[in-house]
Amino acid sequence: MEIFERLESEVRSYCRSWPVVFNEARGSYIYDESGRPYLDFFAGAGSLNYGHNHPELKSKLIDYLMSDAIVHSLDAYSSAKRDFLATFGETILGPRGLDYKVQFPGPAGNNAVEAALKLARKYTGRETVISFTNGFHGMTLGALAVTGNSMKRGGAGVPLSHSATMPFDKYMDGQTPDFLWLRSLLEDSGSGLDAPAAVIVETVQGEGGINVASAEWLRGLQEVCHEYDMLLIVDDIQMGCGRTGPFFSFEQAGITPDVVTMSKSISGYGIPMALTLIKRELDVWDPGEHNGTFRGPNPAFVTGAEAMRLFWSDDSLQKATEAKGQLIDRHLRAIAEELGSEEASVRGRGMARGLVLEREGAAKVLSREAFERGLLLETSGPEDEVAKLLPALTTTEQELEQGLEILADAARAAMKAPQHA
Amino acid sequence: MEIFERLESEVRSYCRSWPVVFNEARGSYIYDESGRPYLDFFAGAGSLNYGHNHPELKSKLIDYLMSDAIVHSLDAYSSAKRDFLATFGETILGPRGLDYKVQFPGPAGNNAVEAALKLARKYTGRETVISFTNGFHGMTLGALAVTGNSMKRGGAGVPLSHSATMPFDKYMDGQTPDFLWLRSLLEDSGSGLDAPAAVIVETVQGEGGINVASAEWLRGLQEVCHEYDMLLIVDDIQMGCGRTGPFFSFEQAGITPDVVTMSKSISGYGIPMALTLIKRELDVWDPGEHNGTFRGPNPAFVTGAEAMRLFWSDDSLQKATEAKGQLIDRHLRAIAEELGSEEASVRGRGMARGLVLEREGAAKVLSREAFERGLLLETSGPEDEVAKLLPALTTTEQELEQGLEILADAARAAMKAPQHA
Amino acid sequence: MEIFERLESEVRSYCRSWPVVFNEARGSYIYDESGRPYLDFFAGAGSLNYGHNHPELKSKLIDYLMSDAIVHSLDAYSSAKRDFLATFGETILGPRGLDYKVQFPGPAGNNAVEAALKLARKYTGRETVISFTNGFHGMTLGALAVTGNSMKRGGAGVPLSHSATMPFDKYMDGQTPDFLWLRSLLEDSGSGLDAPAAVIVETVQGEGGINVASAEWLRGLQEVCHEYDMLLIVDDIQMGCGRTGPFFSFEQAGITPDVVTMSKSISGYGIPMALTLIKRELDVWDPGEHNGTFRGPNPAFVTGAEAMRLFWSDDSLQKATEAKGQLIDRHLRAIAEELGSEEASVRGRGMARGLVLEREGAAKVLSREAFERGLLLETSGPEDEVAKLLPALTTTEQELEQGLEILADAARAAMKAPQHA
Amino acid sequence: MEIFERLESEVRSYCRSWPVVFNEARGSYIYDESGRPYLDFFAGAGSLNYGHNHPELKSKLIDYLMSDAIVHSLDAYSSAKRDFLATFGETILGPRGLDYKVQFPGPAGNNAVEAALKLARKYTGRETVISFTNGFHGMTLGALAVTGNSMKRGGAGVPLSHSATMPFDKYMDGQTPDFLWLRSLLEDSGSGLDAPAAVIVETVQGEGGINVASAEWLRGLQEVCHEYDMLLIVDDIQMGCGRTGPFFSFEQAGITPDVVTMSKSISGYGIPMALTLIKRELDVWDPGEHNGTFRGPNPAFVTGAEAMRLFWSDDSLQKATEAKGQLIDRHLRAIAEELGSEEASVRGRGMARGLVLEREGAAKVLSREAFERGLLLETSGPEDEVAKLLPALTTTEQELEQGLEILADAARAAMKAPQHA
Repeated sequence: MEIFERLESEVRSYCRSWPVVFNEARGSYIYDESGRPYLDFFAGAGSLNYGHNHPELKSKLIDYLMSDAIVHSLDAYSSAKRDFLATFGETILGPRGLDYKVQFPGPAGNNAVEAALKLARKYTGRETVISFTNGFHGMTLGALAVTGNSMKRGGAGVPLSHSATMPFDKYMDGQTPDFLWLRSLLEDSGSGLDAPAAVIVETVQGEGGINVASAEWLRGLQEVCHEYDMLLIVDDIQMGCGRTGPFFSFEQAGITPDVVTMSKSISGYGIPMALTLIKRELDVWDPGEHNGTFRGPNPAFVTGAEAMRLFWSDDSLQKATEAKGQLIDRHLRAIAEELGSEEASVRGRGMARGLVLEREGAAKVLSREAFERGLLLETSGPEDEVAKLLPALTTTEQELEQGLEILADAARAAMKAPQHA
Repeated sequence: MEIFERLESEVRSYCRSWPVVFNEARGSYIYDESGRPYLDFFAGAGSLNYGHNHPELKSKLIDYLMSDAIVHSLDAYSSAKRDFLATFGETILGPRGLDYKVQFPGPAGNNAVEAALKLARKYTGRETVISFTNGFHGMTLGALAVTGNSMKRGGAGVPLSHSATMPFDKYMDGQTPDFLWLRSLLEDSGSGLDAPAAVIVETVQGEGGINVASAEWLRGLQEVCHEYDMLLIVDDIQMGCGRTGPFFSFEQAGITPDVVTMSKSISGYGIPMALTLIKRELDVWDPGEHNGTFRGPNPAFVTGAEAMRLFWSDDSLQKATEAKGQLIDRHLRAIAEELGSEEASVRGRGMARGLVLEREGAAKVLSREAFERGLLLETSGPEDEVAKLLPALTTTEQELEQGLEILADAARAAMKAPQHA
Repeated sequence: MEIFERLESEVRSYCRSWPVVFNEARGSYIYDESGRPYLDFFAGAGSLNYGHNHPELKSKLIDYLMSDAIVHSLDAYSSAKRDFLATFGETILGPRGLDYKVQFPGPAGNNAVEAALKLARKYTGRETVISFTNGFHGMTLGALAVTGNSMKRGGAGVPLSHSATMPFDKYMDGQTPDFLWLRSLLEDSGSGLDAPAAVIVETVQGEGGINVASAEWLRGLQEVCHEYDMLLIVDDIQMGCGRTGPFFSFEQAGITPDVVTMSKSISGYGIPMALTLIKRELDVWDPGEHNGTFRGPNPAFVTGAEAMRLFWSDDSLQKATEAKGQLIDRHLRAIAEELGSEEASVRGRGMARGLVLEREGAAKVLSREAFERGLLLETSGPEDEVAKLLPALTTTEQELEQGLEILADAARAAMKAPQHA
Repeated sequence: MEIFERLESEVRSYCRSWPVVFNEARGSYIYDESGRPYLDFFAGAGSLNYGHNHPELKSKLIDYLMSDAIVHSLDAYSSAKRDFLATFGETILGPRGLDYKVQFPGPAGNNAVEAALKLARKYTGRETVISFTNGFHGMTLGALAVTGNSMKRGGAGVPLSHSATMPFDKYMDGQTPDFLWLRSLLEDSGSGLDAPAAVIVETVQGEGGINVASAEWLRGLQEVCHEYDMLLIVDDIQMGCGRTGPFFSFEQAGITPDVVTMSKSISGYGIPMALTLIKRELDVWDPGEHNGTFRGPNPAFVTGAEAMRLFWSDDSLQKATEAKGQLIDRHLRAIAEELGSEEASVRGRGMARGLVLEREGAAKVLSREAFERGLLLETSGPEDEVAKLLPALTTTEQELEQGLEILADAARAAMKAPQHA
């Protein structure tokens, strides 16, 4: 481990919570070099919705690589890209009646966000983008300006601008009607809010603490966008690809965003890839106006297309995810009940779930206790107050129950810990 | 091809110059679906310095994948990452006496740049970053602000700030002493230039038109940086990994940048990966202050480490690259001479070479004519006036000569073309 | 009038509502070149609180000028400046227990605001300034960024940044507890609001439509500022110098701002002058860090000092203003009642009063009808929906009643007008 | 003097160099309270081109005030404004063949600059404004962004943007052809300079150190502006109103700026006033799009109109200024020669002259020595290295010679001083 300490920048982070060296992974399990297994309720922060090294994806990937098929093709046409696009059209867009065009903006989620923001500004000729409290959209300068976290924002070293923050659903605990503030600003020519190009929103805020927007709120937001000619950008990087049940997390609300950003599980295998989906009539890009070296990651096209065929040809995954989500929710509620309503509460949708611990530092301790018991899970929220569960969608019920038992133990241990800072 | 037109955004670009569908690739050749081979003098814009699907890298990659070794690990520790770091330390840093720490800032070059800019601003507490005419550093908002190209900049949709542009080497044709303008501004408290955090520079500007900074100019720049406490950031994304001969493009000048950005060929196999190298004493990051999902692309660690072992254990690749660079240069000079000094000139270093065609649109025509003759090469420069050669470093002399013959033919054809717009 | 049309820029504005040429003025009356008198309920937008050409101020001013006393002295010391400062200390600051230092930031209100914003940013090392919906602070770039009006903001031609808009008192009609939104943002490190340097607020928003902040709201705001180490800047440019009763408009609320901006009536005679008042411990300016040519307008010092002696040696003006304010309020309420509560309502404090007409364009028509009947009054509010009364504080009760009768007539005529756009 | 120290902000500046209290002033003399006269070679930083309290201007001003003519009228029409506009048209614009419209942007020079910048951005739809090294345009946020001085810029507390600095005439000592850098950037679509809205320039930089732009350079600049559709804004706030000889300082160069800013001596009496002159076809303001309380300072209209009649009805003042400028120049050259060319040099045009002292701090000492000998003069330049002479244009030859003798003495004393910091 000395090599990491000597050579890797101090910016490294997860390794500080999990001070072991991982080397193997299968399905919902990950192993350290000593062979110790960890049940993974973290899943690459949502990048491994189909589990680690899914055998059918692996098989396709290896076949592809062995045949000397093209790996890197920038944004030239390739057979793998065509297959990806065709499968995306048939499996995802067509059945949902969505008429999006697909941009490959670069390999990272922030590339998808940066492209979405640029396009919205270009299309509308406006500059301000509305984001929401505790939203998270990435670390590049444009994406960071619509991200809430003050530590991350401070890292920019320059003021972040062209954005305005608005309250996410339930942010003010029902003390204010939805969108009252946003609508007041938009309606009032003296409000000081310059006409926004777009709104960028997550339907469930993962980094922000598993804050769930209700379907009603999302529909209300879409309405405001339509009324004021703002594009609605749904950032589905963490919550897309089935995390909340359906392929797109916004399907449950019955809305149709103007732009959708995707990444994380879109390749299905943990390989870097991102998409920006754009309503056909909004595709006003000039050729090459946004570019990047890794826009054509063919291995990711291969696993991504196969993942769509495997998991999204029918609604079985969606149904299973919803059922497993219920299972997790029941367990978490039991844990929260045991801890007491002053101490704990539960949030989430589908297989994105959070256990909120009110006591300062308690969720951090819970995560550490869980790690020691062989369960990986992350904390999130502005004060890291939420134990965040993002197990692979392919995790079995038995594995889920096993993990939730560990979680219950860890929670009890966390509540007994003398101090939490 | 209808699928691309129907489903892919209008932003797509290279596919417009090369309207075929590629499917296989080996070494310096790439094949379209009809089986037609193309000699590739483009090499993924510098991402494939070791050629397409190098057999030894492939073999390591497939072994890794087949063993269910971990693919995606964010910034947790993994065996593959340790091997990459150790190999990087032993093969690259140690022999060159460089004491850098390594940041994995995300999978794209722009992530490396954004991290470098943030760190420079944090370390110095200043905001302005000096960039150079025709510099290119990426499409995210921070990187775009230090990029010269007006079309790309315009895509931002917001003003780009916290940067100031300075003349690159030879920009004003020797009519001005080097750094006269920059030094005047820095020395003069009334100049209007706020004290800069850093300078970001490419030693050879690839996108900018294969503009080569002399060793003397680079040393002069380092001197100015030292005098005025500005960090020197070398963006080695396109010119690093041996493109100009040595592993780092700045070695020839004998300078030691404070921060180095790398990407493209660092994985050796065209898989997305990027590094930000930071002088040990400048590593003032807080844990997690810059993050991202795809910071731990283990397959890229595997091929990247193997590439270092294969190609950088001794200086043979460097010497071969320099020799091949001379070969290319001789041929290009012959072509230029044939076209006449009014029409054509030659630029470059190592295996980054450019044939500059003065006539408007001529380089674009040359590129098209080359494509028709089975040779892929890109244009660059602000008016796309430079035919840009970035063949894989592993291209054989015979392949180089074959390609250069095609190029000569294409150049002749381009000069005969009735119009060039 | 042809000369104006030929030579004066299209930006001219009031002259379009009052298409006559004024030449004389005394007390509450102003006369056009034909000798027609107009009762002035506008008072130079609050610059003429002591009426036009007050005889005692005039006498002092003329004596000063006739004696060849110094007129222009930049920020050198002058006898007139000393007298101004001493009188300000004795008459204004001392009796109110205020320990402010006085900056002469330039002749215009926006200079006072720009200086206040700079100082707050310097003192705190932060950049964001909180402003309020429908706030108005001036037309220079820094002041404009904290101003709400979208037409004025649009005039900047560049994005306005480093500011965030918050709801003014009663902005959301009591549907939200005071400061819930602001406090939520400040408390939550994931809110996206960067820690603010300061809050800038008017106690009564003049340009914004005579929106009155309650004493309770202002005290609440001061509390939030103290809790979060933000400076509280009260912009008293329009509402200071007795407009709402006491010398400073914030006295009624019992708060002590960190910084106060003053202008308009501070010279007492309509001569350009502005002040920035700074709590002693916040006076961290370096000499000359903010400067300007017209910081030492000695004639304004002379009339300003004399105005303080005449009007602020005791509380008689304050009491009279409050009484006259009640008189105006009673009349306006009667008018509003006559028009019906659907159509009209009343707002204000002291002698800053507004009659709000709901029907689109009605207030504009009222103003025009009033002008035709010999009464000058302005409209304000984001849609110019408020007839705004700012009579000189020295206006007699008889004059007030005369003007309010005209106003009642004009209001009736306005309601009968067929269209209002 | 205790009152100033107790009550005036630390930002005060000139009073620190001249620690006396002034009270009277006539022509080129100013007196402190002890009756000591000072010959004034400072003239309110160029605000008193016609001397202190010019008797004919005074007489008009007093008559105006005594008649209860209107003092403050915002931007309503007034008789005084009409007379000012008519006189400006007949005396200044007409004879010079200039077709400008006049904007009254507020009382301070920075208001004129802010209005000019806004208009240029509105008219062109672009954001960047080119300014020059050591340019000075004011302390408000927009004006400060085009000002060079780093101490002043630092006072902003936020990054200053939407501007780019270029070398003023002779900035790089003839080592670079004029405009090579600017033209290179404008011609090159990859330069990183976004298309500028305008250029703002002083023909002689007063605060910057009496740096004189040659006529040829100014014509070259106008040419560049025409070629690239940038507006040419001449900031004539300090150098206009005859300071360099002709009314406008740019007349000698034979150029016609698109926009001209004026202030300082435009009222002729040291009363705050400013103008923005706009070519007729560029007057695209909407009514009220830029406003301000003190746009209609009638006393300033009265003295300003009278000053034009007195001084600009023929070319006698221009000729006298040029002759006196020669006289000053001869004397300064003699002083510089005496000090030695290593130590001193001379710059200037008309009655804006500078004696540059190379030794650090020497000019500051000279200014202090001069003050002690009864002569007021300021320093300027980025290191305060220039003793700056701006005597009233009405200063007699005898007074000039008297002052220059004092200056010579003070210079000798300054060179003998042991240290200069």
